[in-house]
Amino acid sequence: MRAIISVYHKEGVEELASVLVNLGYEIVSSGGTAQYLRERRIPVTEVFEITGFPEILGGRVKTLHPAIHGGILLRDWKEEDVKEAKSLGIKPIQVVVVNLYPFEEKVKENLEEEDLIEFIDIGGPTLLRAAAKNFRRVVVVCDPKDYSWVASKLKEGGLSLEDRRWLALKAFHYTAYYDGVISQKLADMWGVEEPFEVSAFPLRIVGRLRYGENPHQRGYLAENPLEDLGIVRARVLQGKEMSFNNYLDADSAFRLVSEFTKPACVIVKHTNPCGVAVGNDLISAFEKALSTDPQSAFGGIVAFNDTVKEKLAEVLVERFFEVIVAPEFDDAAIRVLARKKNLRVVQALGFGSWWDIKKISGGFLLQEEDRTDYQDWQVVTTRKPSYREEEDLKFAFKICKYIKSNAVVIAKDGMTLGIGSGNVSRVDSVRCAIERALRYGFDLKGAVLASEAFLPFRDNVDIAAQVGIIAIVQPGGSVRDREVIEACEEKGISMVFTKTRHFRH
Amino acid sequence: MRAIISVYHKEGVEELASVLVNLGYEIVSSGGTAQYLRERRIPVTEVFEITGFPEILGGRVKTLHPAIHGGILLRDWKEEDVKEAKSLGIKPIQVVVVNLYPFEEKVKENLEEEDLIEFIDIGGPTLLRAAAKNFRRVVVVCDPKDYSWVASKLKEGGLSLEDRRWLALKAFHYTAYYDGVISQKLADMWGVEEPFEVSAFPLRIVGRLRYGENPHQRGYLAENPLEDLGIVRARVLQGKEMSFNNYLDADSAFRLVSEFTKPACVIVKHTNPCGVAVGNDLISAFEKALSTDPQSAFGGIVAFNDTVKEKLAEVLVERFFEVIVAPEFDDAAIRVLARKKNLRVVQALGFGSWWDIKKISGGFLLQEEDRTDYQDWQVVTTRKPSYREEEDLKFAFKICKYIKSNAVVIAKDGMTLGIGSGNVSRVDSVRCAIERALRYGFDLKGAVLASEAFLPFRDNVDIAAQVGIIAIVQPGGSVRDREVIEACEEKGISMVFTKTRHFRH
Repeated sequence: MRAIISVYHKEGVEELASVLVNLGYEIVSSGGTAQYLRERRIPVTEVFEITGFPEILGGRVKTLHPAIHGGILLRDWKEEDVKEAKSLGIKPIQVVVVNLYPFEEKVKENLEEEDLIEFIDIGGPTLLRAAAKNFRRVVVVCDPKDYSWVASKLKEGGLSLEDRRWLALKAFHYTAYYDGVISQKLADMWGVEEPFEVSAFPLRIVGRLRYGENPHQRGYLAENPLEDLGIVRARVLQGKEMSFNNYLDADSAFRLVSEFTKPACVIVKHTNPCGVAVGNDLISAFEKALSTDPQSAFGGIVAFNDTVKEKLAEVLVERFFEVIVAPEFDDAAIRVLARKKNLRVVQALGFGSWWDIKKISGGFLLQEEDRTDYQDWQVVTTRKPSYREEEDLKFAFKICKYIKSNAVVIAKDGMTLGIGSGNVSRVDSVRCAIERALRYGFDLKGAVLASEAFLPFRDNVDIAAQVGIIAIVQPGGSVRDREVIEACEEKGISMVFTKTRHFRH
Repeated sequence: MRAIISVYHKEGVEELASVLVNLGYEIVSSGGTAQYLRERRIPVTEVFEITGFPEILGGRVKTLHPAIHGGILLRDWKEEDVKEAKSLGIKPIQVVVVNLYPFEEKVKENLEEEDLIEFIDIGGPTLLRAAAKNFRRVVVVCDPKDYSWVASKLKEGGLSLEDRRWLALKAFHYTAYYDGVISQKLADMWGVEEPFEVSAFPLRIVGRLRYGENPHQRGYLAENPLEDLGIVRARVLQGKEMSFNNYLDADSAFRLVSEFTKPACVIVKHTNPCGVAVGNDLISAFEKALSTDPQSAFGGIVAFNDTVKEKLAEVLVERFFEVIVAPEFDDAAIRVLARKKNLRVVQALGFGSWWDIKKISGGFLLQEEDRTDYQDWQVVTTRKPSYREEEDLKFAFKICKYIKSNAVVIAKDGMTLGIGSGNVSRVDSVRCAIERALRYGFDLKGAVLASEAFLPFRDNVDIAAQVGIIAIVQPGGSVRDREVIEACEEKGISMVFTKTRHFRH
């Protein structure tokens, strides 16, 4: 009986090899693995002794030989195969243990192209794939985590068909992932932006969540190996386990808060912000954001764009929130937050850019992320917004990008006064935003309003004017733009067109 | 100069091979490809002539030999490589043309496991990967679509480094996809549900869309090869090109409408339903769904769960909709709909089940789809809902599943009267639903209300009671459930607990 062992990471392989040797297996190996095993007094047959061919090209070609692959792929339930192998002196291989050159690890080391390319394994995936294809007879092990149970089963008389299938499946998942990483990394490195017709997005499951969006759905958290940082890799410093919805909300909140340069706070519920503000410091930003809708903020996800310190922490622990996200927490703040042991405290270290993916039945919608604020900033009314109004218009329009359509934000002095989200009609979002602002006692005189898509009718303006809104920003582009602008002129409202829409679904 | 050609699909390969021969290349090939080329009078060297090893195991092992892979992988800019190859008689290979055993096509033919497994290509991916790794010197062609331009460039003196990189990238995308399909298919076939730590989701881009959710974002439509049917594969019978948002909305609308057994209609705006109804026929269902909120329905996506016929088509063309989706349209209906040539008419043939994926920064959230209605149906009040009320409660609760949280649906006699969606507070969704219903003149006396998550406070019940709501369904599970039930008792409202939440973000 033969086992081929070819591993980059050597941990645990000695134990597995010993078990195989004790069971009477001949260990076939080459290069580093052979040396490693021999140093540990495990008898090894070199690949070249079997193939009669030396290892060539600095290790680029070792195991790609019919004496090896015939040994893996032969179907011992087919007489022709057995005869043929015998006549050519090919002995069957029953066990294949391989782990691959660590391309992904090397990506993180920022190697030069020439050096990185050498970590694309050719022989290894071929061994794994051949062995996985022949799962009916061959045991394929691609993950050191499986050494121990495989060794036990071998000692107990062998693996079941189900075990071999599971291992084969794992091997194909691994090779798909491996080439997924290579293809995406090289595309990135070489600046090829247009996607290819076929591809595979690699992912690494980093956690099984308690459940998905709802308790009856299983849920998992997965890393994209091609994307740096992101909320997936954020450090959970304390608190209950992050849930599926916590991750979703924390991502949305942290992305939005990261858009501001001034000290800022965003409070999110159900992925929609229910309060956003900038201030002279994080405490004032938090208090402003909270006051937008203190009722909805209950149990919310709170994000900051700067270090959370002790005084802010003292304010935060007075209320019930599910998650606090920030780029940093100082030690004193951590001590204060620890008083609420269920409160999730998440240090998010930033995020890169990648594709946005939406699942639809039968496949996916892919798109670039929405990383633009506005492509134009054109005042279309006689009245121009003041400097303060313009600041608020930009503030409010930015927030629209993170609200489920139809999105309307009413703001003043760097804080949201009312937010309308997720309505099927725009004017309803205007109504909701106003109604909420008035409910919490805000005076909307001099406030501004932003809409993430064009205002289709003048009713939106008329309603806004009634409560004293002084300036409106929207993409423009409706067939009734003229009518909408006229309404503004009539009411003495400034209007800005951005030419940039921010639908978010 | 040597070119290795090993293709399953032979189209176009004759022309490419002729060009190579005329340029002085020796064509190396085996099995079917060799025979195909020789029959077309193209001189071919058999692989075994080079390796000195026969093709074995019914074709399972052909090209896996150092004489081939040394020829592909040797680095002619390294003296050692060149010397070594020379001493072993290994000649460099400059061009590799391969397409793989069509595993994906065979999946669709529902082969038996043993036969399907034979379509897992081992030698082919190895040739592609080796050639792609050595892109600095080797031209790798994995797609017949590239034969023609590659042939032209070869005739003009060769391919640039950029060209070779692009081809190598494409090859790695292809091998990642190939193993992605194999791994997902085998997992499905063998009933392995728990995801592996690493994997790669294969996808096939089937269309570049005009843009993504917004005009400044590029967008693509992609098929999941493992998922049958779905909106991605729906037939667009007429009309303008489907947009990113059209696909998103059509998916949501068609999934919801497919949940009903009675003739049903769903109208969606911004992925949220703005009107849903069942009726004795599709026309009455449509008219009921439309009347919920005729203003928001303007420009909406309309879905039906049965064949659209002439009379319904006549009604539909009287208004402006973006998309009509249904499982079938009869010829007369198609003629009527053709009068509105921009109207997208989409025949959706059903959909299977798969994972739901949500993109967050740094990775993904994966979850099972929400395919449960309710796990329990417990009346928790003294007053029991009547049969008619119970029907409406089930109808309304089902719709909640397809509304962005917080979701509230008011319904009566198989139609929605008011929908509250995407609000950050539940009571606001109740208010919105009521406000809209009253705006359109509906009498809510005897209507029912559904909430996709628990009602946290009795205010929701009090507000509902004021307008005459007679029964409420919700998951239950709030710490204040008793208070909420007491409010129902006080107001004479029936309440049902389902124990099933339907958050949707």
